[in-house]
Amino acid sequence: MAAFDTVIRRGTIATASETYKADVGIRDGRIVSIGEALTDADEVVDAAGMLVLPGGIDSHVHISQPSGPGIVMADDFASATRAAAFGGNTFVMPYCLQAKGQPLREALKDYHALADQNCHIDHSFHLIIADPTESVLGQELPALVADGYTSLKIFMTYADLALSDFQILEVLAVARESGALVQIHAENYDAIRFLADRLERAGNTGPYFHGKSRPIVVEREATSRAISLAELIDVPIVIVHVSNREAMDEIRRARMRGLTIHGETCPQYLVLTEDDLKDLGMEGAKYVCSPPPRDKASQQACWEGLQQGIFSLFSSDHCPFRYDDEAGKLTPNARSSFRWIPNGIPGIETRLPILFSEGVSKGRISLNQFVALTATNHAKTYGLARKGSIAVGYDADIAIWDPGRTATLSQKDLHHGADYTPYEGLEITGWPIATMLRGRFVVREGKLVGDKSYGRYLSRGKPFKPSAP
Amino acid sequence: MAAFDTVIRRGTIATASETYKADVGIRDGRIVSIGEALTDADEVVDAAGMLVLPGGIDSHVHISQPSGPGIVMADDFASATRAAAFGGNTFVMPYCLQAKGQPLREALKDYHALADQNCHIDHSFHLIIADPTESVLGQELPALVADGYTSLKIFMTYADLALSDFQILEVLAVARESGALVQIHAENYDAIRFLADRLERAGNTGPYFHGKSRPIVVEREATSRAISLAELIDVPIVIVHVSNREAMDEIRRARMRGLTIHGETCPQYLVLTEDDLKDLGMEGAKYVCSPPPRDKASQQACWEGLQQGIFSLFSSDHCPFRYDDEAGKLTPNARSSFRWIPNGIPGIETRLPILFSEGVSKGRISLNQFVALTATNHAKTYGLARKGSIAVGYDADIAIWDPGRTATLSQKDLHHGADYTPYEGLEITGWPIATMLRGRFVVREGKLVGDKSYGRYLSRGKPFKPSAP
Amino acid sequence: MAAFDTVIRRGTIATASETYKADVGIRDGRIVSIGEALTDADEVVDAAGMLVLPGGIDSHVHISQPSGPGIVMADDFASATRAAAFGGNTFVMPYCLQAKGQPLREALKDYHALADQNCHIDHSFHLIIADPTESVLGQELPALVADGYTSLKIFMTYADLALSDFQILEVLAVARESGALVQIHAENYDAIRFLADRLERAGNTGPYFHGKSRPIVVEREATSRAISLAELIDVPIVIVHVSNREAMDEIRRARMRGLTIHGETCPQYLVLTEDDLKDLGMEGAKYVCSPPPRDKASQQACWEGLQQGIFSLFSSDHCPFRYDDEAGKLTPNARSSFRWIPNGIPGIETRLPILFSEGVSKGRISLNQFVALTATNHAKTYGLARKGSIAVGYDADIAIWDPGRTATLSQKDLHHGADYTPYEGLEITGWPIATMLRGRFVVREGKLVGDKSYGRYLSRGKPFKPSAP
Amino acid sequence: MAAFDTVIRRGTIATASETYKADVGIRDGRIVSIGEALTDADEVVDAAGMLVLPGGIDSHVHISQPSGPGIVMADDFASATRAAAFGGNTFVMPYCLQAKGQPLREALKDYHALADQNCHIDHSFHLIIADPTESVLGQELPALVADGYTSLKIFMTYADLALSDFQILEVLAVARESGALVQIHAENYDAIRFLADRLERAGNTGPYFHGKSRPIVVEREATSRAISLAELIDVPIVIVHVSNREAMDEIRRARMRGLTIHGETCPQYLVLTEDDLKDLGMEGAKYVCSPPPRDKASQQACWEGLQQGIFSLFSSDHCPFRYDDEAGKLTPNARSSFRWIPNGIPGIETRLPILFSEGVSKGRISLNQFVALTATNHAKTYGLARKGSIAVGYDADIAIWDPGRTATLSQKDLHHGADYTPYEGLEITGWPIATMLRGRFVVREGKLVGDKSYGRYLSRGKPFKPSAP
Repeated sequence: MAAFDTVIRRGTIATASETYKADVGIRDGRIVSIGEALTDADEVVDAAGMLVLPGGIDSHVHISQPSGPGIVMADDFASATRAAAFGGNTFVMPYCLQAKGQPLREALKDYHALADQNCHIDHSFHLIIADPTESVLGQELPALVADGYTSLKIFMTYADLALSDFQILEVLAVARESGALVQIHAENYDAIRFLADRLERAGNTGPYFHGKSRPIVVEREATSRAISLAELIDVPIVIVHVSNREAMDEIRRARMRGLTIHGETCPQYLVLTEDDLKDLGMEGAKYVCSPPPRDKASQQACWEGLQQGIFSLFSSDHCPFRYDDEAGKLTPNARSSFRWIPNGIPGIETRLPILFSEGVSKGRISLNQFVALTATNHAKTYGLARKGSIAVGYDADIAIWDPGRTATLSQKDLHHGADYTPYEGLEITGWPIATMLRGRFVVREGKLVGDKSYGRYLSRGKPFKPSAP
Repeated sequence: MAAFDTVIRRGTIATASETYKADVGIRDGRIVSIGEALTDADEVVDAAGMLVLPGGIDSHVHISQPSGPGIVMADDFASATRAAAFGGNTFVMPYCLQAKGQPLREALKDYHALADQNCHIDHSFHLIIADPTESVLGQELPALVADGYTSLKIFMTYADLALSDFQILEVLAVARESGALVQIHAENYDAIRFLADRLERAGNTGPYFHGKSRPIVVEREATSRAISLAELIDVPIVIVHVSNREAMDEIRRARMRGLTIHGETCPQYLVLTEDDLKDLGMEGAKYVCSPPPRDKASQQACWEGLQQGIFSLFSSDHCPFRYDDEAGKLTPNARSSFRWIPNGIPGIETRLPILFSEGVSKGRISLNQFVALTATNHAKTYGLARKGSIAVGYDADIAIWDPGRTATLSQKDLHHGADYTPYEGLEITGWPIATMLRGRFVVREGKLVGDKSYGRYLSRGKPFKPSAP
Repeated sequence: MAAFDTVIRRGTIATASETYKADVGIRDGRIVSIGEALTDADEVVDAAGMLVLPGGIDSHVHISQPSGPGIVMADDFASATRAAAFGGNTFVMPYCLQAKGQPLREALKDYHALADQNCHIDHSFHLIIADPTESVLGQELPALVADGYTSLKIFMTYADLALSDFQILEVLAVARESGALVQIHAENYDAIRFLADRLERAGNTGPYFHGKSRPIVVEREATSRAISLAELIDVPIVIVHVSNREAMDEIRRARMRGLTIHGETCPQYLVLTEDDLKDLGMEGAKYVCSPPPRDKASQQACWEGLQQGIFSLFSSDHCPFRYDDEAGKLTPNARSSFRWIPNGIPGIETRLPILFSEGVSKGRISLNQFVALTATNHAKTYGLARKGSIAVGYDADIAIWDPGRTATLSQKDLHHGADYTPYEGLEITGWPIATMLRGRFVVREGKLVGDKSYGRYLSRGKPFKPSAP
Repeated sequence: MAAFDTVIRRGTIATASETYKADVGIRDGRIVSIGEALTDADEVVDAAGMLVLPGGIDSHVHISQPSGPGIVMADDFASATRAAAFGGNTFVMPYCLQAKGQPLREALKDYHALADQNCHIDHSFHLIIADPTESVLGQELPALVADGYTSLKIFMTYADLALSDFQILEVLAVARESGALVQIHAENYDAIRFLADRLERAGNTGPYFHGKSRPIVVEREATSRAISLAELIDVPIVIVHVSNREAMDEIRRARMRGLTIHGETCPQYLVLTEDDLKDLGMEGAKYVCSPPPRDKASQQACWEGLQQGIFSLFSSDHCPFRYDDEAGKLTPNARSSFRWIPNGIPGIETRLPILFSEGVSKGRISLNQFVALTATNHAKTYGLARKGSIAVGYDADIAIWDPGRTATLSQKDLHHGADYTPYEGLEITGWPIATMLRGRFVVREGKLVGDKSYGRYLSRGKPFKPSAP
């Protein structure tokens, strides 16, 4: 028997900290050796001139969530994880959305059923708490956290999701006591409603006014409030999808007070602006997401946040809709007002190439920062002990990148369920040419070689030590 | 006929800007001359060695407001304005509290009826908007602002008063369009409820825990949010009764963004601390007010705010209750939890001596700053054209101060309706020895010489230019 | 005998705090009465429709100072004070420049000789300490402060003037102990030399590169350092001629630490930009001053500083040179490099109209703020007890303004010694139509009616209480 | 031939990013394999239950530097590197001090002579630029940087070392153009001189007044200035030995402006305070270093700086003197004034145990942060490509730690040349039990097993890409 099932030879390995040349020896789905001249393998993969990186972990994706009456997301677990694999990822963390009145276990059952045997890569769920009833807070949540569902998401906006400050405090208190990490979508719902009403009354209903209905102040206010509520409970949180300097500086100020606030940003805040929503017809709808893309100065701020560690997480916030059919972005409702345009854009497949190209290839961040922002930090933040790095004992979740390959992003080459990409035409330098999940190739030489039965669900460890009230 | 009804001779006049010796000539209730050696008068008052200051204006007082089931405020308009006059004031701005469902005109009618012929000094009303219905916002408010009710107050806390962010935005929008100035009580209601529940469940129900149920973060958060909402509407506001550095710095940061945010603080935040609530029995209830007194560092911050102009208004937030009877602070409910202790402390008579003594006599602020903080800025901020200064053409609202007189604050010497003062025993240097309203003495040589028919209601001008939505 | 020498009737008086209609009665050069219908006067001046303001005080002007080999300032005391009077001023504070090795008394003797019987308005001197020898620090300075020379100026740049940090600390320590206020010109000399060398070596020698040799960082650094040195000594200082937001924010941060730092800005930072230095020929030299004008955002910052009280002083930094002759801005040296262009621009006559027009007429500041920034605050800051306001007992130093008169600034209408104005063509609304010094008109109806023997030297009080080391 | 010279088995490896169990295979002084169950080795070291960390890199140590007339440092290269090895280090970066007028090559020759064949571990030199002459700047420095001396140090204080701002700018400009990283000792020399003079004149000459002569403002000011100068040149710098929050916040503010400013702190700022200098006799001299230890709040600030990445470097600033003899801390001069006490304290051997115990064992920082702060970041910041981590291809510089071993720091157990430790009595949890340099043990089981011929000099790569002026 050979010492290794597979050896990846002559590549350049990068972790969140080091970059060096070595071979990777894999057996039984795990990395068992990193060394010079490993040879004794069933299969030897030559990675000369290539980068050997941990597979991307996308800790912020929406798959198969209901999104409003008659609206269907454009990706199910199979298509989303296939696209993710093509984009160099080996792990996704979609959401399990609780409906009002629904027990969490029931919601989980539904999402597990959707995902089971239907994922090309590994996954785990964040629980969206839409209805923090006494039984949810008192029984369900502590039990689920103990079972390895160790992260939650709550919303400060959206009619069906927004929690009151009182409810937020209750959720945060349970999180602190059980050791779960809470993601917060920080936008002020009342302010958005107020502004949207005014815009509609003034006849400003096109996609562009989506952005005008949720200006930076709306995000900054909610970010500041979320942090204050976490400060009262004394518990870490994640502020997801930060889009601008003012909200970012709230995180910075919180850290100056000694708080643990994780920050996340996304590709749309690096390469899109509100002007992309300006198209005269309904093309602008393709860029509708929340928070909305801002301006060039905000892009620069987000880069600084990535460079300086204000943002430790770079996720896609993948939320795909189709543009061309009844269930998609352009329902008659959506045409009547920006308010009804399905909120979200696809990005699961393009996240890594965009950050690699705009970040690493253009010299804004180092290769090690890229690895940290796209894989290692996600694993650490959310309690995945053996994911997110190239190290002995870790799962052999590996993406092989050609740092010199150039490409032009185009919908025709993508594998997600959406029928467009908001990044159409973006020139890219650096591409993931192969993705391996626990030692098995899922994507290789531009082809899907894996199967949707490969991906497994993983329960996660506690992101921090629980503490009594 | 003499040239003047009254001349105040040989005193030292101080305005918000100047300090100089001159005589003041008064005719028909107005100052008609300031000069050297004015003599031709029916009455000559010798003020040699004394300060001649504009009568104090207290723009934050509660009189005769209902305060919960069975709770009665300890002052009606007669006793409150009498106490105010003894404390060197000539104008008060109490609140007209709208009940849920009540038209504002109706509430005003009630309060006017209580005040009419029942005030020793002049007055005007702020409208508390507790129920911003469509008719309140669309019809009543604009009409009342046009009639000279040009300031409103809204609350972010208290079960019967707290407005949602949406409602706050609606009120602010109407204020902007009509030219009314909005005072905001900034504490996060949900957070207070959450913390109070926890404290009660843990058996922490004494007065001291009132402060623990509304820590600084609760005030800072709401201050930040109030400012953000005002920023969205682009309208000036007043943050009332700021108690600490963190909330103060939110105002400072707002000004750095170019916003007009007025700041107010009160005597309780300069000389009391949370430790005053600590009394083992129920004595601590005497210091229960919101926001609660903080610590020594917060006192220092409030002084800095006064010195540096972050706070332009110094008010009493007079809110008097009796301690010894059924309707007062110590109802059975109040004994069961801090939550039910009537919220407020008396201060209308002691505001000016405390600031004079702790501020001017101790060298923390100048005499001109004292005048600005206690009279001139209130008149300017709230649209009183001919009040708040010693100048020709202004109403002869004058307080004569003996800067050297010392006193020990004591309930036995006060004239308010409360049966205690939270400042018992405080040593004072500097005392108002006479108060004159529109040329007539109200208090002189420690005696009430005026009558409760003297005081008049005044409608006010617009604090700023209204602007279209 | 009439009660008054002069009465100014029916005007609108403004102080730093109030605006009201009244007559002003003047006798023996002082204001002795402010009242309604004052009539019994030798001369009655009708000011109906006009503003009656305190005469401007310009606490930052350079007159008859030597400015380098062969360079002569374009104004002597007669012409500078004449121009000042035309511009609505009644007091100037020029500098007495100590030469290296020169006793201060000797320098003062020279400047007094130049000024005596040669001033149309009153004046006082700031002492520029260029050589803080032991005798200057130990004997001369304390004695001169006691004699009423209660303000000093020191420089952090210029070859012949720059003091080391050690010398600055020594001067500040003496100032603290004697009660003198120190103005600091804050630019980093070494950085300017370094940048100027580099620019010259690269052939960038035109006037425009003057600005490039002293960028904002150079001013911010020195401002921060000056404040830190004052913090070590615990003494108030004035940061003069602040040009931009970053330097301004250093003052703001210092105040947050509780320090007393006065801030000053000037007209050139409100209406000029670095682009004015760009003229291809040598026209740009007309705008060379230090710090240099910046950009539009810096102008906005300076306005905010005036509005929010970060800047309490608005001065001209008048420093006039001629452009057309050998001794002026365009010596052969000046043509060889920006480094040799005489540093300074004229502004003594235009300071008040520019601030009135751009500030009051355009609604950026109130009339009361105008009075404070141009007169009252200068008197208070520098120890002039009876100057800077319209109040009984004050010197009758009065400027009568027509708030509606429009004009276009033009060299042909000005009275200074320079042969150009950097504000040529600026449209003005609001003009000083008469200037009165201690009860006598100096300028009236556009004509000089005073005499250069009118102006007197005044010794000043201590700006703050001295304290032992 | 065995596959490996040595295998370290069953230990827990930690890098700046990961912690995992694996064996380390070493051949020819390098790590050639990390894997499970590596066995084929000449020597197998069992590290079960132990941590396998990269050897510490101390990038701030003083060895054999002249320190004033008659003063000799207590360590030569042999003793210093021996002590370093006992403390878990495998690399040190001492300083090569240029004397005034001395060519850098000549100074280097001297220091190389001292170090050569005299080091137990590897080393490299920072060049202290004390005399930046034209030839130093124009010829020597660029050539030496090209030769691998890629870091410099400059001082803003000390009589013989302080550079003017002009000189600092010149050095920074050369650094930018050649790709060298500049360390700056940031304290304001003039302010220290001024304060020391005053203290001495007042008879305050004991060790405790050392701290009073260089208060926080002195360090904050110089830090701010150093950053501004770097901002003008647009070049990265390192602010070494930051001791307090105010200086730290200058770094933070600089990063908010987009600058690359590295921050370093040291053990003395985490566990000592100014009170340690208070001893009545001369014991306080043992704690004299610059900047001086501050207070508890400053310790907390420094911990936050380490936690949040404001400080990426944790060094010893080892600067050892003896206490008991003529050439040491207590020369007669030193007894006459704090000014003459040799400035510096020993710490090369205790740096790592202190940070491990106070940081990792007490839960303030993670093990990965420990590795980054003590090894990896030093290698990256200063251009050591194959040092500072446990990774294939890296030098086998390894420290084996027993995380559970407790010890009490005591001079009697230390190996440095000083005759005391300022940390006497400090309880430690976690200890380096063996140190291996390039595959050979230097220290093992508490015994020196290496030789002073082991250590080699290494030239380093450029910390950043040079750019044209």
